[in-house]
Amino acid sequence: MSEPVSADADDGPVAIISGGGPFPFVVADAVMRHGRPVLLFAVRGWTDPAAVARYPHHWAWLGDFGWFRRTAKAAGVRDVVFIGTMLRPKLRQLRPDLATLSYLPRLVRLLRGGDDHLLSGIGKVFEENGFRLLGAHQVAPEILIPEGTLGRHVPSEQDRADIDRGLAVIRVIGPFDIGQAVVVAENYVLAVEAAEGTDRMLARVADLRRERRVPLSGKVGVLVKGPKPHQDRRLDLPSIGAATIRAAEAAGLAGVAVEARGAITADLADFVAAADAAGLFVVGVAAEARGSA
Amino acid sequence: MSEPVSADADDGPVAIISGGGPFPFVVADAVMRHGRPVLLFAVRGWTDPAAVARYPHHWAWLGDFGWFRRTAKAAGVRDVVFIGTMLRPKLRQLRPDLATLSYLPRLVRLLRGGDDHLLSGIGKVFEENGFRLLGAHQVAPEILIPEGTLGRHVPSEQDRADIDRGLAVIRVIGPFDIGQAVVVAENYVLAVEAAEGTDRMLARVADLRRERRVPLSGKVGVLVKGPKPHQDRRLDLPSIGAATIRAAEAAGLAGVAVEARGAITADLADFVAAADAAGLFVVGVAAEARGSA
Repeated sequence: MSEPVSADADDGPVAIISGGGPFPFVVADAVMRHGRPVLLFAVRGWTDPAAVARYPHHWAWLGDFGWFRRTAKAAGVRDVVFIGTMLRPKLRQLRPDLATLSYLPRLVRLLRGGDDHLLSGIGKVFEENGFRLLGAHQVAPEILIPEGTLGRHVPSEQDRADIDRGLAVIRVIGPFDIGQAVVVAENYVLAVEAAEGTDRMLARVADLRRERRVPLSGKVGVLVKGPKPHQDRRLDLPSIGAATIRAAEAAGLAGVAVEARGAITADLADFVAAADAAGLFVVGVAAEARGSA
Repeated sequence: MSEPVSADADDGPVAIISGGGPFPFVVADAVMRHGRPVLLFAVRGWTDPAAVARYPHHWAWLGDFGWFRRTAKAAGVRDVVFIGTMLRPKLRQLRPDLATLSYLPRLVRLLRGGDDHLLSGIGKVFEENGFRLLGAHQVAPEILIPEGTLGRHVPSEQDRADIDRGLAVIRVIGPFDIGQAVVVAENYVLAVEAAEGTDRMLARVADLRRERRVPLSGKVGVLVKGPKPHQDRRLDLPSIGAATIRAAEAAGLAGVAVEARGAITADLADFVAAADAAGLFVVGVAAEARGSA
């Protein structure tokens, strides 16, 4: 389910269920460039109203599943993409319609597991209702981080060792549905991301270094970021961009390693330019390179 | 090497290399109660000068290994205990004497690994010089967290599941020499400790909940704390006390689970009383109970 999807305009518009941030519009633009129409379902409280106005769109509550099903089918939608930031909603923020209500017991069970359970469960509900759930990267492959050294700066041998160690940690914590990123410096795991998110984890590393709680000096250490091994990539590929580069720079790191095709970026050129300017390397690492401990 | 050590006064004084906090004095008191003399080596900048004045002691820099070896042998010391807080020192904070200088290349190599490498390497140096390195808990078993429900409050079935999940996470990250604690709430791993320490990890969970970045309400979740699986327990058993209970309470947790005999506390009665007062459970969990994912 990770391969690009070929389809033409006869397959109807791609429904883009849109959260916050730039991704919904980057994906919509790419889909249109590839020759298919789009129909955005803008989630109230998250989607940027000014930006969404430029596209065919409806406003919706997250709990409007019955309405969505009718509206999307009437528009000839088969393919559905979820994209954009959205915190895990509390049940009372869902505003469930009748169809959604019938799924609530299942949702509640899913909410008691981690994000993975929730997301793959939601995917199943869409498929049971005749939709094809696609990853944003399948309709807009240009948002994927490619493999290789992406910018001007190159990781050292020690950086390579730190990258391998980081990938190994991400792999062992994968089954626990924890985070998608770690910071490793000179073989030492400084931080593991869980519910706080990557930028906060990097801010923590910046604090530890400023307070000299870790014996490191100079530009050392790597942010290693990838998808969780069993993650449903159609729903939750991690994203990365220039803001992460700035946070990595503030944490004193030497660079950033991202699993190639395992993370998305809204603007690759901007991301790489930020790293070049900050003196950080950026590499896309093949998943097969995931070494052992 | 984890069993209590039986020895009498003929074995000479126990040398206690003392960092910060109350533990050096708790251990010294216990050793004397058990009938052996002590000789404290107070590390400059860390040991509390007022408290150490009550015991036979010398002041020392961490790098005074040659001087330590002469002084300790002259005093009839065979058994050496390291105890008390000390951040990983920078090399320039070591103030190495000649004997220490000869070990520096080895120390530098150890510093490039994680804490485990550093600590077990230091242990080896002491043993090569004819000392017996003991864990504080071996000369003062009363500081170990015992097994069972320790306070008035009892974990629920969900809490038990969260404890099992936390123990499983600690086990898989063990080989990476990361942290010693995680927070799990309703099966969801909220935080993993690395270089920041337990109290900061708990402060992070308190922030996440206050900002409603995690969909939890009421008193839920467990701090699970244990030693790293391959840790040299003579040098680095995690410690826990009333301050951790207060931090767990601020994070909205239901309780705290500690691996029985895998962590130390300076004052068990005080620790349990703090939990009782805060309405949190405290349990010592047998290491064999470490479940799978």
